Amino acid sequence: MIRVGIINVTGYAGAELARLLYSHPEAQLVSVSGRSAAGKALADVFPHLASYDLVIGEEIGDIEFVFSALPHAASAAACAPLVHAGVPVVDISADFRLRDPKEYAEWYGGEHPAPDLLSQAAYGLTELNREAVRRSKLIANPGCFPESALLALAPAVKAGIIGPEIIIDSKTGISGAGRGLDLRYHFGEADESVSAYGLSGHRHLPEIVQELEAMWPRAEAPASPQPKVSFTPHLIPMTRGILSTCYAPLASGLPSGQQGFVREIYEGFYEAEPFVRVVDSPPATKQTRGNNMCLVYPTVDARSDRLVVVSVLDNLVKGAAGQAIQNMNAMLGFPETMGLDMPAVYP
Amino acid sequence: MIRVGIINVTGYAGAELARLLYSHPEAQLVSVSGRSAAGKALADVFPHLASYDLVIGEEIGDIEFVFSALPHAASAAACAPLVHAGVPVVDISADFRLRDPKEYAEWYGGEHPAPDLLSQAAYGLTELNREAVRRSKLIANPGCFPESALLALAPAVKAGIIGPEIIIDSKTGISGAGRGLDLRYHFGEADESVSAYGLSGHRHLPEIVQELEAMWPRAEAPASPQPKVSFTPHLIPMTRGILSTCYAPLASGLPSGQQGFVREIYEGFYEAEPFVRVVDSPPATKQTRGNNMCLVYPTVDARSDRLVVVSVLDNLVKGAAGQAIQNMNAMLGFPETMGLDMPAVYP
Amino acid sequence: MIRVGIINVTGYAGAELARLLYSHPEAQLVSVSGRSAAGKALADVFPHLASYDLVIGEEIGDIEFVFSALPHAASAAACAPLVHAGVPVVDISADFRLRDPKEYAEWYGGEHPAPDLLSQAAYGLTELNREAVRRSKLIANPGCFPESALLALAPAVKAGIIGPEIIIDSKTGISGAGRGLDLRYHFGEADESVSAYGLSGHRHLPEIVQELEAMWPRAEAPASPQPKVSFTPHLIPMTRGILSTCYAPLASGLPSGQQGFVREIYEGFYEAEPFVRVVDSPPATKQTRGNNMCLVYPTVDARSDRLVVVSVLDNLVKGAAGQAIQNMNAMLGFPETMGLDMPAVYP
Amino acid sequence: MIRVGIINVTGYAGAELARLLYSHPEAQLVSVSGRSAAGKALADVFPHLASYDLVIGEEIGDIEFVFSALPHAASAAACAPLVHAGVPVVDISADFRLRDPKEYAEWYGGEHPAPDLLSQAAYGLTELNREAVRRSKLIANPGCFPESALLALAPAVKAGIIGPEIIIDSKTGISGAGRGLDLRYHFGEADESVSAYGLSGHRHLPEIVQELEAMWPRAEAPASPQPKVSFTPHLIPMTRGILSTCYAPLASGLPSGQQGFVREIYEGFYEAEPFVRVVDSPPATKQTRGNNMCLVYPTVDARSDRLVVVSVLDNLVKGAAGQAIQNMNAMLGFPETMGLDMPAVYP
Repeated sequence: MIRVGIINVTGYAGAELARLLYSHPEAQLVSVSGRSAAGKALADVFPHLASYDLVIGEEIGDIEFVFSALPHAASAAACAPLVHAGVPVVDISADFRLRDPKEYAEWYGGEHPAPDLLSQAAYGLTELNREAVRRSKLIANPGCFPESALLALAPAVKAGIIGPEIIIDSKTGISGAGRGLDLRYHFGEADESVSAYGLSGHRHLPEIVQELEAMWPRAEAPASPQPKVSFTPHLIPMTRGILSTCYAPLASGLPSGQQGFVREIYEGFYEAEPFVRVVDSPPATKQTRGNNMCLVYPTVDARSDRLVVVSVLDNLVKGAAGQAIQNMNAMLGFPETMGLDMPAVYP
Repeated sequence: MIRVGIINVTGYAGAELARLLYSHPEAQLVSVSGRSAAGKALADVFPHLASYDLVIGEEIGDIEFVFSALPHAASAAACAPLVHAGVPVVDISADFRLRDPKEYAEWYGGEHPAPDLLSQAAYGLTELNREAVRRSKLIANPGCFPESALLALAPAVKAGIIGPEIIIDSKTGISGAGRGLDLRYHFGEADESVSAYGLSGHRHLPEIVQELEAMWPRAEAPASPQPKVSFTPHLIPMTRGILSTCYAPLASGLPSGQQGFVREIYEGFYEAEPFVRVVDSPPATKQTRGNNMCLVYPTVDARSDRLVVVSVLDNLVKGAAGQAIQNMNAMLGFPETMGLDMPAVYP
Repeated sequence: MIRVGIINVTGYAGAELARLLYSHPEAQLVSVSGRSAAGKALADVFPHLASYDLVIGEEIGDIEFVFSALPHAASAAACAPLVHAGVPVVDISADFRLRDPKEYAEWYGGEHPAPDLLSQAAYGLTELNREAVRRSKLIANPGCFPESALLALAPAVKAGIIGPEIIIDSKTGISGAGRGLDLRYHFGEADESVSAYGLSGHRHLPEIVQELEAMWPRAEAPASPQPKVSFTPHLIPMTRGILSTCYAPLASGLPSGQQGFVREIYEGFYEAEPFVRVVDSPPATKQTRGNNMCLVYPTVDARSDRLVVVSVLDNLVKGAAGQAIQNMNAMLGFPETMGLDMPAVYP
Repeated sequence: MIRVGIINVTGYAGAELARLLYSHPEAQLVSVSGRSAAGKALADVFPHLASYDLVIGEEIGDIEFVFSALPHAASAAACAPLVHAGVPVVDISADFRLRDPKEYAEWYGGEHPAPDLLSQAAYGLTELNREAVRRSKLIANPGCFPESALLALAPAVKAGIIGPEIIIDSKTGISGAGRGLDLRYHFGEADESVSAYGLSGHRHLPEIVQELEAMWPRAEAPASPQPKVSFTPHLIPMTRGILSTCYAPLASGLPSGQQGFVREIYEGFYEAEPFVRVVDSPPATKQTRGNNMCLVYPTVDARSDRLVVVSVLDNLVKGAAGQAIQNMNAMLGFPETMGLDMPAVYP
């Protein structure tokens, strides 16, 4: 059993890591930290974790593998000494997602706390970056929206079947905003209501753009236009789940029978992936509640010659803690499904 | 007081008409029909309407103005004799929305039941078609999604500032699906979940396209491309409300300072409208719950040179019954706000 | 038109007063105060109140009638000078509900801020205390739970048909907890969950007991036992609404056919009341959403010889702002239904 | 691995059995039946169960252990031949819960389909009836409300510290009503609303009474009064969860310091139970979402000398499928926690 720690267990992502690790046969959660709740029993802060006999510490204890669920900036600062000490780290925060420290400074408002580590970090969307994840000791776990958008678009981008005019319209449950108090997330305000946010630029946009650009086909068309992405997240009156609806023009010259052609591309792309399933009918977020699945539904809008892809996942699992454990499994040479193979909690 | 009737009061739109008419100072609801519930007191079917002393009839009684809330096909059949008898009608169904009976046949699966009346019908989006509404005796009340999309896009389309590549991503509460039983709307299925539907073509799409084409600028550019619209509705775990997020490329050659320029266009367009308000921050559907307002938030995504407009309304009020009464007011020469001037029920 | 003010408009009860007053034909809202938001336009704090052209002030302006929606203690302090100046006041807070200042000190943790005014205050449950309300210039608007429990139990208590072993089990929407931030009311915590609270004694308990004791029959039974009340509120994942389920043993010696006998008592008791309706089947809170109705369903559990009464109301309307306006109407000699006669917003 | 089948997998309880069995190390689900969906793949009916490669059959196949999730009457008919063939059965339906076939006929409206089996059936509330469960081949899995009420009351009843005037006020999520279509469970009706039901007598009442009477202390008081129970279930706008609030008078003559005295009784009673935890603060249903825990919070209302006990559980797990698997484990000599030891899915 490998001894695992969680830095900042007191938010939703941290607590979800603890929940999922409980069932992992090769990893044992032995240390959790969290400043505001230091000294309290984990079971008192989170009654659903009462089976753990752990006290929340100021600092993380003696561990062999660590997850950081701190907010950005604080996370890189906490991870850096661990990385230097050789401890493998999965960072749930945004700190190591953007490879360019200038982009980080622009979007996160401050100098990057550990720019020297950026080159060592692998972007932890395992399905799209498996080899790098396996080799790295520092994983930048993806943002929940990028996770849903990139899994929806990657097969089409890599197959070169879409043009660069991409629109990503995402709908998220409120746990994505975390456990902090804010009038927007007060039940009386959020219940029975939908709203858009981040319209002037959400921090997950540069992450999406960076990854789409990295996979954009360029060999045959050196001057090919780069993806031009609009991304709008919406707050939905539910606790868990993200649904992203992604729109892009189909490239010209595709064979006829596009719907079948597109499905084949998607099914081929994901056929060996245990956590992505290409589905036959529009999926609902409820079908992934509590587990690590992403369901992808690609479809062709023949009237407008557009690809429309819908993806769903649980923002706290495939969009955060589950993906992090999948990364841990890949880093440590375990089967990726270890501890993560369970049906969703429906209804 | 004008004597008003509602054909098929037993669905959500019919019940909402009755709710709103209760406060109308010049219209009195005197007759309601509904086959499945014929013979029952309105108060027994809908306890919130207990203040009415009405029995649901098989047929509508002696009235001077009628709203039809029947399903499509049945509605045209029921409205036709009334129209011929000179009774002014607002039809909540889809029957008179598409001006081309071939389009109707394609999308609604059957011959149009009263094609001779199509030329008399006015499309009842009062803000965009006021004069025709005032002159007509037969109003096709808009669909809830077209209402939200057209109010969001009309100022930009008419000002000629957007290109034809339009994407409309809508989120609706479940009352939009009506009161009929279906596993998709069972609480256990719909609660805590989001899903997309109508991906192979929703019936509101041709209505949106028809109206966008009708307002599309053509004088100066006879060969200008027609709007190419993708429309995806999503089911949201709430009862009332629609939010539409509309994306379109900005035309080239716009003046700099586009955000302010676009706002001015929108504010100018709606400045005299009592039921559309251009707002300063992203609106929430909750801000229109129960009243006839549509809030519109136009914004420019400068990174992608796109216009992104968010609109919210209550699908049962501005998206159905409220719009219908607004049309009645316009047809009868009452102030359009009569009986409809009330704050939303927040929180 | 009487010039009306609201002290502390920034909570849910204050905002709801403003919403309802908008439709009142004889009262005009001319002044609103609220410290944290002083200087802001009411329309900016509450977009659903955009039809008002009012700025929130530090202090209330020149008015002829005032509602106070301040928290307890602060409310009495703010109301006292107004009462002394002869301005009629409806206090939504708890400050004038308990007639005994010692009880107040015990339950609200501090000396009563204006004990001299207690004798002038009338308990504003209009249906049960109409004459006192009409005569008074200072109304203690009831708590939302007492409102629902007392309307459910009063007919049985006054008819002397129940014994003193009373249990009140109440379920409330989350708006009852106000607009303040607290982890318990964060959407992620409150959604999809039910919990009990106040088990060691909720502040509405002494109010319920005080009023039940006041109406308890004593003439014929000088040593008759006083009501022995347990009251447990529960937090429900919805925004508005209270349902109270009240249990009490039936007195012995009642005539047979108790169900009909009990119904007659209830129907007789409320037959002239516009805002209380005795219903034939178990009511749902949704049937009173947004309006001033209380629906009461009395039933006899013949197996256990108990009376079980279910009542529903909207905690922000009949449980707060609507009741307050009903009291204003009674105080000013208007019909009690003025401005309050509207159907609930269903669904 | 034991080969397990589920009769009628198509409801929520059946699907939940399949979900939980997926993680069971010693039981393998090999056959599922369900008439309406016979011939379909399980994965098509329930996308969250896509990891199973099973087709729903008309009849159950070759199995060594069976769960029946049929409706009452049909279930006994289907179980009888299996029991006679020596296959161990856990029946989720109500058919074997009431020991007296006359009671069954009165509450379930028809002759019992297999009265000869009643004497063989053990009531499967494992914590209270473990030895009988271990010895039996036919288990009557408890109703969800009785489960929550009996676990809340058993320690007090067995300790003889409460009188017979018992009130059980329960709140349930809508999945308790099953997956069948009914206007009451339509999202538009159930959302944002609470209602009571079963006021003239819910079928879980005789089950509760039967079990309370069976454990009622009688040795020292042969004429002691039998429990007099009122039970009212309420429909809550959430999918999963039951909270029961149970009220009973404390017996006279208890030692002072009752709160601590009562807690000790409860803690002692459940100290060896893995699935019942006596908690220190009022629990929320969300703390048991998706797992097999029941949290019990006993408290004394000193003002009224009443015991008030709040219990929470997930109606589909501890209230149905989880309890059924716990029973299977006990019957087969496995540790009761096998396959059931997992944290709740919070938030």
